[in-house]
Amino acid sequence: VPQAAAMLETFPATMNVDRGLLAAAIEACLDCSQVCTACADACLSEDDPASMVKCVRDDLDCADICTTTMRVLSRHTGYDADPAGRHVRPRLTRAQLTACIAACTACADSCAEHADHHEHCRICAETCRRCVNACQELLDSIS
Amino acid sequence: VPQAAAMLETFPATMNVDRGLLAAAIEACLDCSQVCTACADACLSEDDPASMVKCVRDDLDCADICTTTMRVLSRHTGYDADPAGRHVRPRLTRAQLTACIAACTACADSCAEHADHHEHCRICAETCRRCVNACQELLDSIS
Amino acid sequence: VPQAAAMLETFPATMNVDRGLLAAAIEACLDCSQVCTACADACLSEDDPASMVKCVRDDLDCADICTTTMRVLSRHTGYDADPAGRHVRPRLTRAQLTACIAACTACADSCAEHADHHEHCRICAETCRRCVNACQELLDSIS
Amino acid sequence: VPQAAAMLETFPATMNVDRGLLAAAIEACLDCSQVCTACADACLSEDDPASMVKCVRDDLDCADICTTTMRVLSRHTGYDADPAGRHVRPRLTRAQLTACIAACTACADSCAEHADHHEHCRICAETCRRCVNACQELLDSIS
Repeated sequence: VPQAAAMLETFPATMNVDRGLLAAAIEACLDCSQVCTACADACLSEDDPASMVKCVRDDLDCADICTTTMRVLSRHTGYDADPAGRHVRPRLTRAQLTACIAACTACADSCAEHADHHEHCRICAETCRRCVNACQELLDSIS
Repeated sequence: VPQAAAMLETFPATMNVDRGLLAAAIEACLDCSQVCTACADACLSEDDPASMVKCVRDDLDCADICTTTMRVLSRHTGYDADPAGRHVRPRLTRAQLTACIAACTACADSCAEHADHHEHCRICAETCRRCVNACQELLDSIS
Repeated sequence: VPQAAAMLETFPATMNVDRGLLAAAIEACLDCSQVCTACADACLSEDDPASMVKCVRDDLDCADICTTTMRVLSRHTGYDADPAGRHVRPRLTRAQLTACIAACTACADSCAEHADHHEHCRICAETCRRCVNACQELLDSIS
Repeated sequence: VPQAAAMLETFPATMNVDRGLLAAAIEACLDCSQVCTACADACLSEDDPASMVKCVRDDLDCADICTTTMRVLSRHTGYDADPAGRHVRPRLTRAQLTACIAACTACADSCAEHADHHEHCRICAETCRRCVNACQELLDSIS
């Protein structure tokens, strides 16, 4: 069981963000980073790798961006640095969430085209859609 | 819920490795990479960051090594390249698992020293120990 | 000597992007990812780590985002997938470049506050500014 | 120009390691992480991606492992924690260097098979060999 939510409860300073939405986005990015890495490799093992090239590439971009977004969201130090108690790094967090939504959307679209015949693409498309939704909800809450 | 085990079931080629042990190691590395990233940041937010410097550093090493180990373990393409159907990349996989066990052991030891007064360090130490065990079991099975 | 520019020359398909601007952005992100990782660690080794906490955190975000931006920029497969020969993934590339500019700007600002007394922060601030400029020039050219 | 050597000069604590060998290994890993990412993508753009699958996979493993090894080598905090002034984390550093040498050797071998007809594989094989040498020299010096 992922410990992201449990770790959020232990953070020793104030956080001006909904912890439920934040935990959901962290866990969605974490899961998506693994699924996209595995999907890229499964695509390369299919009988016709040439037909999967776009899918592999979108998987690799999405895996990297999800890993980094998960890490940025897992750091909260900046939030408690503002004397007024407000969110102090909305610009960076919003920009990385926006990039993550773009990457997951592109990857979900690519994988969806193969979902009928490749089970790994079906799971990957669904995982990417969940990540889009979780990141969008968090983004809406801090905008 | 992490999809690592479900993704393993969809892999379109033979794998000469116990899928249960592999899924457990992937999920343990994935979880540990997030927990260590969060623990480093929580340590920086404690009242006395100077006392947490070694812990932060071990967290950062462990987060990076767990992310990379998770990715290496999530790629199986190489396994089916051997004409005899055997494991074809034991050396690389074993070496990265060995590095991961060293990183998680060091981080668990550092965090354990703060587990009584910092809940994030207690959770992180436990997560690292689980990762050591999962990686060691997988390593034993492929050695 | 970094090989990013040499690798761009070998790409076996058409690319609708200025290769000089692209190589400059890739190399700037690559260098910045290393410098920020080293700066975070040097900050932790200063006599008063408590005063460096914001700097460490900005370094870590910047290192992760620069690594991922370098990787996204190093993949060009998608560019040649468009039947009309146009840039096919401007949205994702633009979004990640925007996040990278935000991260490097924040890190440069944090490090600049310590540049007078910590040489690693002075070098890091300059490296981040160079990365901002290289990413902005590339972003302008594809917008 | 990479700033790794300049950053090493600014480190505010003692380091019991040859700074020239360390800087060389950091820069070799950094360069290799980019070249392998670009080579994987160039392989996917070749006319016959099916023939490049093993190469792509080895590139991806090597890129991830080089990124992580570069980061581990860029952190020196642990070195000054030992009261006796000795190297305090040889085990982890040695293990990660060993994994990096295994990954770069495997990738250099894969790319070398395509070096005659794919220039990106020729450059990648050479870059991986340089990284093997730099990591081996550093490993020898701390063993």
